[in-house]
Amino acid sequence: GRWPADCSLYVITGDKFARGRSPQEIAAAAIRGGAGVLQLREKKFSGRRLVEVGRELRRLTREAGVLFVVDDRVDVALAVDADGVHLGQDDLPIEAARQMMGPQRIIGISTHSVEQARRAELAGADYIGVGPVFETSSKEDVIAPVGLELVRRVAQVVRIPKVAIGGIKAHNAGQAIAAGADGVAVITAVVAAEDVAAAAVELRRQVAEARGNK
Amino acid sequence: GRWPADCSLYVITGDKFARGRSPQEIAAAAIRGGAGVLQLREKKFSGRRLVEVGRELRRLTREAGVLFVVDDRVDVALAVDADGVHLGQDDLPIEAARQMMGPQRIIGISTHSVEQARRAELAGADYIGVGPVFETSSKEDVIAPVGLELVRRVAQVVRIPKVAIGGIKAHNAGQAIAAGADGVAVITAVVAAEDVAAAAVELRRQVAEARGNK
Ligand code: NI
Repeated sequence: GRWPADCSLYVITGDKFARGRSPQEIAAAAIRGGAGVLQLREKKFSGRRLVEVGRELRRLTREAGVLFVVDDRVDVALAVDADGVHLGQDDLPIEAARQMMGPQRIIGISTHSVEQARRAELAGADYIGVGPVFETSSKEDVIAPVGLELVRRVAQVVRIPKVAIGGIKAHNAGQAIAAGADGVAVITAVVAAEDVAAAAVELRRQVAEARGNK
Repeated sequence: GRWPADCSLYVITGDKFARGRSPQEIAAAAIRGGAGVLQLREKKFSGRRLVEVGRELRRLTREAGVLFVVDDRVDVALAVDADGVHLGQDDLPIEAARQMMGPQRIIGISTHSVEQARRAELAGADYIGVGPVFETSSKEDVIAPVGLELVRRVAQVVRIPKVAIGGIKAHNAGQAIAAGADGVAVITAVVAAEDVAAAAVELRRQVAEARGNK
């Protein structure tokens, strides 16, 4: 797979944090604010609804040249012609996903240790998520924060793009980049913001500044 | 798609009704008892676990010449090389599933009205489930029973195989067949039985007897 995207700011949907705004509305604002990757992640949606919403997000992201990834469901990713799928450690094995997705589509893997990060790279992942870096409450299966130290250690041994995730806000995004992350992934910092586009702009600014300082 | 299977007895897994016995154990006993179709349906399992268990059920069903279908997840069905997928009205649209599954694999659709049954057939379903025929508590999204009358009406207008589902036990299985169903689908009547194989044998016997009387 290829990874041509700008992963500085990777925004993940989360309908329950969206204050009643639709996933399409959130996505459009996040894209205006500079998100380079958008992930559809709605654990409570039916397959039918995932496909309906996914098709609209596909249209928005395609128009904007933004990478579009679907969480967990390879079938939904293919049905909506997403660029890729994002798999957790309990989701389909990457080998099974790759066989269905083909060599061109992107597969990202959530990792919580150096060992998992190494294994994902060896198995052909196109990028990894590393975290949760800080305390977070937006995912159901809460894992103890791994801290910036894991980002540093993973950055030393893994060459594919690494996106820091978990409790990342504008005030700490720069620390994740300084520790070696290529970008930051967020749910609530953008989705729950009163001004979604402005929140995205500010996160991107923090990432760019931290990169400039490296 | 083709439908070469004997759908007289269609057994659906349901781990929470299995009294601690593994899906593999239940499946093996159901097959010994004469199930012609086995469906893996575990709403609480992770993708990883569905693939693990699905691969074992695939092995068992292949050895026995039993049709193997996965509920809801086209990606899991493909990953374990199942014969087909079973879709509810809220799952992926059949057109999207067919594109991924190809013409050879089987797609079944749950239907709760004549209109849904007609639509499924027109859209290229290989078989339909019709129900819930009787009161049932084994599915999370409980729908009011549609009764034997719907089975009768569907049987008059739909030519693909029709499997009656919902609250079917040995004592009423024959009524579903008499109403026009080609087979009966069960969860608890088999999965929760103390002797799983014997429960399957008895259901098959009731189906065969009702068929003989037609
Ligand atoms: Ni998942």
